[in-house]
Amino acid sequence: MIIRKRGREILVGFGITPPQLNALVILNEQGEITMGDLCDRMYLACSTATDLIDRMERNGLIARERDRADRRVIRLKVLDPGRKVIDEVMAARKRYLGGILAQVPEEERDLLIKYLSDLHSLMRQAEV
Amino acid sequence: MIIRKRGREILVGFGITPPQLNALVILNEQGEITMGDLCDRMYLACSTATDLIDRMERNGLIARERDRADRRVIRLKVLDPGRKVIDEVMAARKRYLGGILAQVPEEERDLLIKYLSDLHSLMRQAEV
Repeated sequence: MIIRKRGREILVGFGITPPQLNALVILNEQGEITMGDLCDRMYLACSTATDLIDRMERNGLIARERDRADRRVIRLKVLDPGRKVIDEVMAARKRYLGGILAQVPEEERDLLIKYLSDLHSLMRQAEV
Repeated sequence: MIIRKRGREILVGFGITPPQLNALVILNEQGEITMGDLCDRMYLACSTATDLIDRMERNGLIARERDRADRRVIRLKVLDPGRKVIDEVMAARKRYLGGILAQVPEEERDLLIKYLSDLHSLMRQAEV
């Protein structure tokens, strides 16, 4: 809850909302994808996501582009200012968590990281 | 990432999407709130959230109700089937994490919980 709340406070500084960051991260991971794909990945109806995408396009974070092979298809892509927002949000999160972890005794911090890493391995094994 | 992915798989079983669960949890925590309040808390434009709420109302998870004091105001509330969805999703998450933690040696598990709890205390202190 605290991390989520802090994450939202960080976003306010960049003038974007959590669903907008979610869209940015998906677009950045997937490269150029269609509106339909983005809606599916955000679990939003396309009528819903269009609103959000319009605002981000107006703010210069992303762009709509026609597919070169099939001109009827519109693809979305992240622009440099959008990528900058992602980088800065991630950096702000790391600074926040780094500031907290700096207060933990070194031995405890090392063990915490080891135990979380073990947990992650178990989760990955369960995925197969 | 794995927890998010598993969380989404759990939701599929209940026929709801992550934004719908988000709306359910907010409504359940806040009691009866207006559409405007819900949109603010979901960081979505109301035109966007209306879609989502319509679908949840049709599925019998939530209801729109007129405020008794001011009949012009519409409030949203979670119905019993909606509350049941929340309870079952939380129970399924606990089962998943419980299954993973059961594979961790007891001593390591106790320390992990202690260290995470210490981290939580530090985060709470930083909030003040």
